[in-house]
Amino acid sequence: MSKLVLIRHGESTANQQHVFTGWNDVSLTEQGKQDAQAAGERLRQLDLSFTAAHTSYLKRAIQSENIVLDSIDQLWIPQYKTWRLNERHYGALRGRKKPVVREEVGDEQFMQWRRSFTAVPPRLAEVTPKRRYARMGIQEPRAESLQMAYDRLLPYWQDQLAPRLLQNENQLIVAHGSSLRALIKYLEHLSDVAIDGVEVPNAQPIIYTLDNQLQILDKQILR
Amino acid sequence: MSKLVLIRHGESTANQQHVFTGWNDVSLTEQGKQDAQAAGERLRQLDLSFTAAHTSYLKRAIQSENIVLDSIDQLWIPQYKTWRLNERHYGALRGRKKPVVREEVGDEQFMQWRRSFTAVPPRLAEVTPKRRYARMGIQEPRAESLQMAYDRLLPYWQDQLAPRLLQNENQLIVAHGSSLRALIKYLEHLSDVAIDGVEVPNAQPIIYTLDNQLQILDKQILR
Repeated sequence: MSKLVLIRHGESTANQQHVFTGWNDVSLTEQGKQDAQAAGERLRQLDLSFTAAHTSYLKRAIQSENIVLDSIDQLWIPQYKTWRLNERHYGALRGRKKPVVREEVGDEQFMQWRRSFTAVPPRLAEVTPKRRYARMGIQEPRAESLQMAYDRLLPYWQDQLAPRLLQNENQLIVAHGSSLRALIKYLEHLSDVAIDGVEVPNAQPIIYTLDNQLQILDKQILR
Repeated sequence: MSKLVLIRHGESTANQQHVFTGWNDVSLTEQGKQDAQAAGERLRQLDLSFTAAHTSYLKRAIQSENIVLDSIDQLWIPQYKTWRLNERHYGALRGRKKPVVREEVGDEQFMQWRRSFTAVPPRLAEVTPKRRYARMGIQEPRAESLQMAYDRLLPYWQDQLAPRLLQNENQLIVAHGSSLRALIKYLEHLSDVAIDGVEVPNAQPIIYTLDNQLQILDKQILR
């Protein structure tokens, strides 16, 4: 039996401005730091020991995880960062204000892009290579559906997360709305339709208790 | 050619109180966080790209490194934590006020314990096992001379630092007064006597430029 804790980062400057973000690398706001601190303090009550912490290549998640690890006094555990936990890539929507896009394309298209499993947002015309992706021989995608994010997340689950959980080692993941939705879809065996309705609020720890086949025995949300 | 940057953590609560600390796990003060921030900002001017960051198992170093990585906008690089970069273990002196100990044992013994390469501080009578050390099958030492810290640091240099530097990959280390003194002794080929005079101030980046045999071409301190 093991515990898997998922936390979405605290409020980012893009959340605050209602902007599509994806792989844009924006910081937490002051409020976001407090969100992460509060999440860490709630988690501390459970007195869980983790053997590793996992996060994305994006600073809003890393900053949040560092704050959480400090508040549960486990800053010393190994922290693994991976682009596979990155937010879904919002393509040409990134940097654009959500209400403006909604106005432009209408409610239905807007909600498709935001919530559907398969809809791919408009693609970026070009991508400027970033060192963090170039060094592992991958190129930034030009846009991702939730399904595409799911597909690139799964190898990380299989290679890094599942083996540790199967050794009864509790794992902490601090990541993003869509990468966590993808993981939740996988863990909870949700259909492509059912995942539409799932939202992951900022900085509320979700605690799964998993059996020795990684099936869910219990799910708890620390609000 | 590669750059190796060493930074001692910012002011800790123990620095502030003039207490021997070693493996005691104390936090940065508010001043210490500002120290680390200032070190990061000075380092940012140099516009160096690191491929990895290394720190100890102790939160004053990890907190400092997280602040530095954020201010140079390289939070996403891999961060490795190792007990081999821990501060020297001060044995039974840990938690004791430096002026009180000095009064008790006299200037000469006090300076021996603080500065000499081989002097071992009084040993702890017993050690309560901590998860972070127990999980790797090591036991907390009961006290360490600088030489003992040097000996346990060296494998990390050989296995993790030197190979990366030899690939022309810049490396960042945020650690402690004595673990950095040990590394400086090694890098600069200092004698057991010469290292007595070396002090590493909090939060002042030391930048070594190393040739392809890891000999020092240049040393710069960002005060």
